[in-house]
Amino acid sequence: MQAPFADRLAQAVRQKRTPLVVGLDPRLEMLPPELAPDRPGHPAQVAAAYERFCCRVIELVAPLVPAVKPQVAFFEQWGPPGLEALARVIARARQSELLVLVDAKRGDIGSTAQAYAQAYLGPQAPWPGDALTVNPYLGPDTLDPFVAAAVEQGRGVFVLVKTSNRQSGVFQDLLAPENPVFEHVAAQVERLAGQTAASCGYGAVGAVVGATYPEQLARLRKLMPHAWLLVPGLGAQGATAADVAGAFDPGGLGAVVNSSRGIIFAWHREAYAPLGAARWEEAVQQAARDTIEQLRRHTPAGAL
Amino acid sequence: MQAPFADRLAQAVRQKRTPLVVGLDPRLEMLPPELAPDRPGHPAQVAAAYERFCCRVIELVAPLVPAVKPQVAFFEQWGPPGLEALARVIARARQSELLVLVDAKRGDIGSTAQAYAQAYLGPQAPWPGDALTVNPYLGPDTLDPFVAAAVEQGRGVFVLVKTSNRQSGVFQDLLAPENPVFEHVAAQVERLAGQTAASCGYGAVGAVVGATYPEQLARLRKLMPHAWLLVPGLGAQGATAADVAGAFDPGGLGAVVNSSRGIIFAWHREAYAPLGAARWEEAVQQAARDTIEQLRRHTPAGAL
Repeated sequence: MQAPFADRLAQAVRQKRTPLVVGLDPRLEMLPPELAPDRPGHPAQVAAAYERFCCRVIELVAPLVPAVKPQVAFFEQWGPPGLEALARVIARARQSELLVLVDAKRGDIGSTAQAYAQAYLGPQAPWPGDALTVNPYLGPDTLDPFVAAAVEQGRGVFVLVKTSNRQSGVFQDLLAPENPVFEHVAAQVERLAGQTAASCGYGAVGAVVGATYPEQLARLRKLMPHAWLLVPGLGAQGATAADVAGAFDPGGLGAVVNSSRGIIFAWHREAYAPLGAARWEEAVQQAARDTIEQLRRHTPAGAL
Repeated sequence: MQAPFADRLAQAVRQKRTPLVVGLDPRLEMLPPELAPDRPGHPAQVAAAYERFCCRVIELVAPLVPAVKPQVAFFEQWGPPGLEALARVIARARQSELLVLVDAKRGDIGSTAQAYAQAYLGPQAPWPGDALTVNPYLGPDTLDPFVAAAVEQGRGVFVLVKTSNRQSGVFQDLLAPENPVFEHVAAQVERLAGQTAASCGYGAVGAVVGATYPEQLARLRKLMPHAWLLVPGLGAQGATAADVAGAFDPGGLGAVVNSSRGIIFAWHREAYAPLGAARWEEAVQQAARDTIEQLRRHTPAGAL
């Protein structure tokens, strides 16, 4: 039985001295030319290219960051070969002693949620995550099977609370009747996080809160003192290191910050374009180092 | 280019003279003994058993109902072999001229939602559904990629509005500030349904509304005049044919009603237990016929 997820995450963040998580979001049209598939419409070839690319990214960032966040959708798009590639990418990340936060945003009624929980958090999970993202819309009873499976295996769950997209407020920010919907979800997350708190003070249940909404992020940090926050939206989605400052506790823990395209496809960005596609690996490492440095300078994570 | 989903569903419901959809929710512990895998923990063997079972159920119900609803979670639980089995189950249902409503409840921010949409609704979808269930929590901008992909291919989307589980009200029923959250979601569904209305009057975007909440169901029918409703919760979840009466338009169209365990595992029910596991196929067909008859007697679907 491994240590609780919350403690393992705290240890990994302290060891690497950064809360940066690298999102593995492979996209066909952005792959390095040397790794692009010969037949771009062929699922098995695309899946193999995604696997090679993600495994290489893992090798590049493993010395630098505590965790990676594979986005299941990009693998699922290519069918069973894509999902076989995902399983091997997860295995490679674990070999490299990175924590794996599987971004699948699953959610269903209780008996069905159990099946999803087994797929990502169970003892024989085909895609074993250290944690899984889940969607709360169906209600607290649909979170329970995920939480139970996670706790049993020393794994974790990140519940979507306030997402990073432009129209996330249309339902999440509705005043119900005095507090926005996302704060009602946050209250359930905090309840579950408190019930599962580990030595570090945080629990097995965390929250996804977008970096693109800095005010809500700071407020949610206060409302969920036992919940690790998984903060997407840095970089390509427009948020800066300063925007995520409110996500951390005074010691620099309590949040991990994800950047996907801004790191794994760094050579497409103006700042790293001079390296060119041939030196994409240097661009990936440099972008990761630069992002880590920005997080140190602008957030309490600098205290790590 | 095939006809719009809404019209194809209307035609199928009229042709079979019933709104009953059979949910394909295979569960290891409930399989007929003759189809149970030799090694119950072996993913490829379980997947093969699920495939044989679901394909046989499809043969049994194809003459009786317009559509099946495979639940992705139960296949996903077993990893890539499970999802390969799902692809073959979907292919078999299409061969049998059943519509396929893929129950995956996917949802993610826009650029990622595109990838999920391609997996289930795109021209080369590995799991091609006539429609897909999606989760609205992230916001309307995250529904758009699903709707765009669906409309382009003559397919459809069912958005979770009010789900059938016990605690669905904890977030969905919050008053925001005067109407519950689920009515805000319903308003977006109606907008998208109206924009995509086909000859039958219904659009490419429908709503999932649980049979276990009859009052809300009747109200949501009125609030979304252009939306097909997909109504789960009949049978094992406790709702009766009378509970779903409010889901239909006066002509008996506008809703399809799902039953899963109550039909595919009918021989486990007291009413059909006398047939025994050896005659499970008769139990499946008899339970489907009995449910169709109840829906005829207690709902406007009797007018079909």
